[in-house]
Amino acid sequence: MRRVAVVGVGHTNFVFNSPKSGMELLSEASMEAIHASGLKPKDVQAIFCGNVLGDFSEGQGMIHSYLADDIGCKNVPAMRFEGACASATMAIRDAYMWVASGFYDIVLAGGTEKATAMGTSLATRTFAMFSDARYEYPSGINFPGIFAMLAHLYSRKYGIPLQRLKEVMAQVSVQSHLYGMKNPRAQFQKEITAEQVLKGFMVSSPLQLHDCCPFSDGAAAVILASEDVAKKLIDQPIYFAGVGMASSGKLSSQYKYLPRLRAREVAAKQAYDMSGVKPEDIDVCELHDCFSIASLIAAEGLGFAEFGKAGELWENGETRIGGKIPINISGGLKSKGHPIGATGASQVYEIVRQLRGDLVAEGRQVEGAKIGMVDTLGGDGVIVNLILCAN
Amino acid sequence: MRRVAVVGVGHTNFVFNSPKSGMELLSEASMEAIHASGLKPKDVQAIFCGNVLGDFSEGQGMIHSYLADDIGCKNVPAMRFEGACASATMAIRDAYMWVASGFYDIVLAGGTEKATAMGTSLATRTFAMFSDARYEYPSGINFPGIFAMLAHLYSRKYGIPLQRLKEVMAQVSVQSHLYGMKNPRAQFQKEITAEQVLKGFMVSSPLQLHDCCPFSDGAAAVILASEDVAKKLIDQPIYFAGVGMASSGKLSSQYKYLPRLRAREVAAKQAYDMSGVKPEDIDVCELHDCFSIASLIAAEGLGFAEFGKAGELWENGETRIGGKIPINISGGLKSKGHPIGATGASQVYEIVRQLRGDLVAEGRQVEGAKIGMVDTLGGDGVIVNLILCAN
Repeated sequence: MRRVAVVGVGHTNFVFNSPKSGMELLSEASMEAIHASGLKPKDVQAIFCGNVLGDFSEGQGMIHSYLADDIGCKNVPAMRFEGACASATMAIRDAYMWVASGFYDIVLAGGTEKATAMGTSLATRTFAMFSDARYEYPSGINFPGIFAMLAHLYSRKYGIPLQRLKEVMAQVSVQSHLYGMKNPRAQFQKEITAEQVLKGFMVSSPLQLHDCCPFSDGAAAVILASEDVAKKLIDQPIYFAGVGMASSGKLSSQYKYLPRLRAREVAAKQAYDMSGVKPEDIDVCELHDCFSIASLIAAEGLGFAEFGKAGELWENGETRIGGKIPINISGGLKSKGHPIGATGASQVYEIVRQLRGDLVAEGRQVEGAKIGMVDTLGGDGVIVNLILCAN
Repeated sequence: MRRVAVVGVGHTNFVFNSPKSGMELLSEASMEAIHASGLKPKDVQAIFCGNVLGDFSEGQGMIHSYLADDIGCKNVPAMRFEGACASATMAIRDAYMWVASGFYDIVLAGGTEKATAMGTSLATRTFAMFSDARYEYPSGINFPGIFAMLAHLYSRKYGIPLQRLKEVMAQVSVQSHLYGMKNPRAQFQKEITAEQVLKGFMVSSPLQLHDCCPFSDGAAAVILASEDVAKKLIDQPIYFAGVGMASSGKLSSQYKYLPRLRAREVAAKQAYDMSGVKPEDIDVCELHDCFSIASLIAAEGLGFAEFGKAGELWENGETRIGGKIPINISGGLKSKGHPIGATGASQVYEIVRQLRGDLVAEGRQVEGAKIGMVDTLGGDGVIVNLILCAN
């Protein structure tokens, strides 16, 4: 298989209640990525889209084909991937294979979502379709409830009193906003304090308002190219070093394993084995912080901390620029926003820019970053997608 | 890239109002395919699913992951593809690439749908989301309306009076039922006459009841393997010879081209070029007869007849066993049924069995068939997926 590079990236602002449709958002991100790659739409050989709620929120399925026609990629093969929050990384991982195999030289992959128009309550109900609808959703569980339960399990398993865990989780959200305020694409560009987090209204105990990411509208896209094409197009291709994906089915199928999430650990082994990279080699990581507790679980599953110890990373500043493993320097889902089907592409966008050294002007560059990791969680641990990139 | 074979296939009955869920249906088809391949679930390295309406009809997204866990393919990578009616062939074409590239040796690909529980009217509205939701659906168009319009355009462009065209189209439906009555998996196992077709109630002029396929519940699945693995598993692998896929966006983007559908013609060129196969080499074809007029348009787009002349194939019996190009010997969507996200996998199931010579006992074997084609249309020409197989 051939080496594959990202040659251009695009990203809309992440906002509440965008006046644009999901397709218009993805068109905007796609055209930015195409132009950044020195290409024209007619150069794109195939399109890979992540989108979750398009049919529900806008009555539009099959956006891949309409997108292709709208942006001038006439008659190209186009596909839509659904893996809940991991939809866009699913699309990107798949696009990687079609280029690595030699079948295509230049493809567009990304994701989009309009999640806010239906309002938070309906969105929460709608999104619960991406948990198990046979046994688990009917028992009254939704996503805030699931992650609250994981927080309780985390507290008990690792002997961390709940109030202490809440203080640790608050540090996760505080850091996300600290960097999100420097990200011009972020939904919330403002600082928050630990005190604000701990005074936030209770969403699902122990998770308070600022432990939860928002719903958002937005899109992101990347252009993938074979190594030889990439070198002709741009000076600084960022290469795929490894990919990993695993599933785990309904949450209760791993009830003895929780709060660890088996899919992430299986996917991480795949990505590390394929790339030869170790957790300690990673210079910057975007991980799936849909809730503050999810960040701790992810950091441990990826091998950045011992199980039960990830809180120390945040409390000691090791997840900040200059620390041992800078995490979510984009602001993460919490501050940058979480347009579900776009989130994975947004994470890849961020890592590519970090590895290029593009973020100096925004005051949030991880200096000399050479290896970056993207971690996207679909649903309640149902799918985990990992992408490792290197410059 | 490596040669890739289908080593086992599975198929549920296609029915109205199945008591099983979409996932249970796909589990049934998947286990049949796994056992037919001489494999166990733990041998499957990845899962590729087509599914369109699962969130709407059952409140369940992300079925790929739940399926994997349910059938014992623990923690495998799993993906869902949406391309309306072409979802399952999208999944299968994609699975083909992951094996051809050398990344996986054995994968499961298929599709499932529960389309009947919501009733035909709501299903028709819901399914209209897979036409253009910005301009075309709001103008009052739904799928029967779109294909009725194509029939009018066909009549006018090729100078075939509408009443005459209706008689030709009736022959398409009559033949579908003729073979469907011999298919034990088919939803309608009964003969119909041209007179019945022409007396059916008007759905959308000129399309009457029997010009339209039904909504159905069902699933189908296939196991793909690399050539070396396939040869160890079974005696008679059926190989992929070529694939093709193209998109076309909203129907009005090709209004001057209609009733021809550009996506099919682009996809056909890809599949023919890749395989070196010509239309006249094809021994048996399953094509997308969502409406009787769609069969004529498909047969011409695939190169089996001159434009405007496909009706002669059906009227002269050339599409029957023993004819020039046997088409839809399964009964097609019209008689076998059309569980949207499963249809493409059902077509591949049929072609693989034809190429193996499995259908003698059912009285519908195309003797000595060596090359078979699958044609799946997603939406109103929005996506076309072609798969060529050879024994």
